[in-house]
Amino acid sequence: MAIRIFITGGTFDKEYNELTGQLYFNDSHLPEMLDLGRNLVPVEVRTLMMVDSLEMTDDDRSLIAEHCRKSKEDKIIITHGTDTMSDTARLLAGGVTGKTIVLTGAMIPYKFGSSDGLFNLGSAMAFVQTLSHGVYVVMNGRCFNADNVRKNKETGVFEELEK
Amino acid sequence: MAIRIFITGGTFDKEYNELTGQLYFNDSHLPEMLDLGRNLVPVEVRTLMMVDSLEMTDDDRSLIAEHCRKSKEDKIIITHGTDTMSDTARLLAGGVTGKTIVLTGAMIPYKFGSSDGLFNLGSAMAFVQTLSHGVYVVMNGRCFNADNVRKNKETGVFEELEK
Amino acid sequence: MAIRIFITGGTFDKEYNELTGQLYFNDSHLPEMLDLGRNLVPVEVRTLMMVDSLEMTDDDRSLIAEHCRKSKEDKIIITHGTDTMSDTARLLAGGVTGKTIVLTGAMIPYKFGSSDGLFNLGSAMAFVQTLSHGVYVVMNGRCFNADNVRKNKETGVFEELEK
Amino acid sequence: MAIRIFITGGTFDKEYNELTGQLYFNDSHLPEMLDLGRNLVPVEVRTLMMVDSLEMTDDDRSLIAEHCRKSKEDKIIITHGTDTMSDTARLLAGGVTGKTIVLTGAMIPYKFGSSDGLFNLGSAMAFVQTLSHGVYVVMNGRCFNADNVRKNKETGVFEELEK
Repeated sequence: MAIRIFITGGTFDKEYNELTGQLYFNDSHLPEMLDLGRNLVPVEVRTLMMVDSLEMTDDDRSLIAEHCRKSKEDKIIITHGTDTMSDTARLLAGGVTGKTIVLTGAMIPYKFGSSDGLFNLGSAMAFVQTLSHGVYVVMNGRCFNADNVRKNKETGVFEELEK
Repeated sequence: MAIRIFITGGTFDKEYNELTGQLYFNDSHLPEMLDLGRNLVPVEVRTLMMVDSLEMTDDDRSLIAEHCRKSKEDKIIITHGTDTMSDTARLLAGGVTGKTIVLTGAMIPYKFGSSDGLFNLGSAMAFVQTLSHGVYVVMNGRCFNADNVRKNKETGVFEELEK
Repeated sequence: MAIRIFITGGTFDKEYNELTGQLYFNDSHLPEMLDLGRNLVPVEVRTLMMVDSLEMTDDDRSLIAEHCRKSKEDKIIITHGTDTMSDTARLLAGGVTGKTIVLTGAMIPYKFGSSDGLFNLGSAMAFVQTLSHGVYVVMNGRCFNADNVRKNKETGVFEELEK
Repeated sequence: MAIRIFITGGTFDKEYNELTGQLYFNDSHLPEMLDLGRNLVPVEVRTLMMVDSLEMTDDDRSLIAEHCRKSKEDKIIITHGTDTMSDTARLLAGGVTGKTIVLTGAMIPYKFGSSDGLFNLGSAMAFVQTLSHGVYVVMNGRCFNADNVRKNKETGVFEELEK
C-alpha cells in the first residue's frame, strides 16, 4: 500500500517573492523533491494547508488529525513547520491510533539551495516504513517519539525533553 | 554508539575535471552532505577506497568485508557505486554477521546539483537505525535484502530478483 | 588598473536566518560569486554597507558618492538593492565625473539557487570595461543610462522612462 | 535588432548519463540559462551542432562561418567548447566581416552546479552589445581579440599570446 503524505507548509515550501522581497508560500515542492530523490515508493500526496507553523490554529491541527484518522493508508508522512511540529505531534499521538505517523520539515527552504529538506525527506520515507504504530518527529537523521521531543528555540535543534 | 560509514567511491563522489573534461574521484563529499542534511546522529567516517564499482576487485571486496567484521559499531553504512552494489551486498551477507549493514549510492553525482544522493543518504541513516541485523541495499526510498536485489541494467533501477 | 567594486547590500546578499525564519544580511557573497564565475579581472572589493535599498538614507547615498569620487580606480561596480537603484544612479550621475560607474543587483538572492545575480555580475564586469565615463544601471542583460531608467514596481523590471 | 546566438556544444552543455556514467550532449541549456539570468535582451537562438570542441572538424567550422556571414543580425554570440575556441575565433576573424562576434563557453558544465557559464554568458551579452565589429573570445570576465588569444593547456586559462 502507498505511503500517504500530507503537506501543511513550513520552511520546506517557502519561496522568495521577488516583487515584495518577502518569503511566501506558493505550490509545494514536495513532488519535485521526490523526483529529485528518485523516490520509487508509491506515495499519495495531498496538500492540507500551506502555513507557517507559528500561525497554525487548533482548527488546523484538528483538520490534520481528522485526515490522519480517515486515511486508508497506515503509513503517513506530514511535512510541517518546525516551530510547532512537536505540538502537532503530541496532539496526533493523543488522537490517532493504529498508524505510523512521521512529521518532518526543514530548517532551510528547499529553494534555498542548501536545504536539509531532501535529507529529512529521505529519512522520513525510511522511518515510516520500518517503525511500529505511533507518532514520531524526524529531523537531523534522528527520530523522536511524539511525547519526548521539543525544538530548542535557542539552537534551533530538536532534542529529547529529558536526556 | 556511533554509526560507522565506509566510503568506497561510486557516482556519489564523482567530480568534473575541468582540464581533461573527464569525471574523476577526489575527496569524498560525504562529510559535506551530512552537514548539508544537518545530520546530528554521531558518525565515524572512513574512506576505504575511491573507485568506480565496475572496477572494484575481489580484493577490494575482501577489504570491505574485513572492515565490517572488525568494526566495533554494529550499524554500518557503505557508500558504493551502483553497478556492482548488489554483488558486494551478497558477499557481505555471506561473510559478516551480527551487524546491520546498509549499502547506498547515487545515480547522479552529488556535485551535479540534481543528485539523488542526499535523499538516499537520509534513507540509509534511518534504515540502518531501525532494521535488524542483516545486509541491505537502500535506493529510491526502498530497502532490499542483499539476497534479493539487482540493478536492472536497462532502466538503471534496483528491483527484486523475483517479484 | 583593477576594477573597484562597492557592496551596499540588496537582494544579492540576502540570507535565510533559520532561527527566525527571516531574511537578513550577513557577509557579502560577492567574492564567492566572482570565484564561481572564475573571474580573472583584477578587482578591489569593499563593503560600504549592507542594507535593503528601501532603507537606504540620504547619508548612505552621500557616503557612496564620496567613495566613488575618492576611488583611484575609474571603473566602478556598485551592487545595490533594486528598489532604489535608479535613485542612487541619478544622484551619482549628478555628483561624480570622470568615471564609469555601473550599478547592478538581483531579483532573487544568490543563495536562493535560481539567482539572476551571477548573470548580472558578468554583464556588469563587461559593461564597466567597455562603456565611456558615466553612470549606468545594468540588469537583465541590458544597460541603461542613469538619467533614463526606473524600476517598474508592478512588473519588477527595469525600463527606460521614455521609450 | 535581436542578438543572434549560435550553439555549438562544449562543456556548457554537457550532461551526465546515469545509465552509462558518461558525460554526453542532449539539448542545450542556453534557453534555461537566459531565463535564469532573466535576460530581457531580444535573442534569436539556433543550435548548429552539439560537439566537444576537440572533435570539431574543418567542415563544422566552415558551417559556423557560413551561418555568421548569412546572419542578418550583426551581433552574434557563439557558445563553444574551450579547447579549440581560439582556433574557431581566428578562422571567423579571417572570414567574416562587418559583425561583432563573441565566442564564450564554460570550464564546468552548467548542470554541475558550480558552473562559470552563467557569469560568462552575462559577460558575453554585454560585450557583444558594446564592442565594435570584430571577433572576440570572452572568458573569466575578460575579452580577447581573436588574433591574440590561446587557452593555456596546463592552467586551463585563456591568455594573450604575447603579454
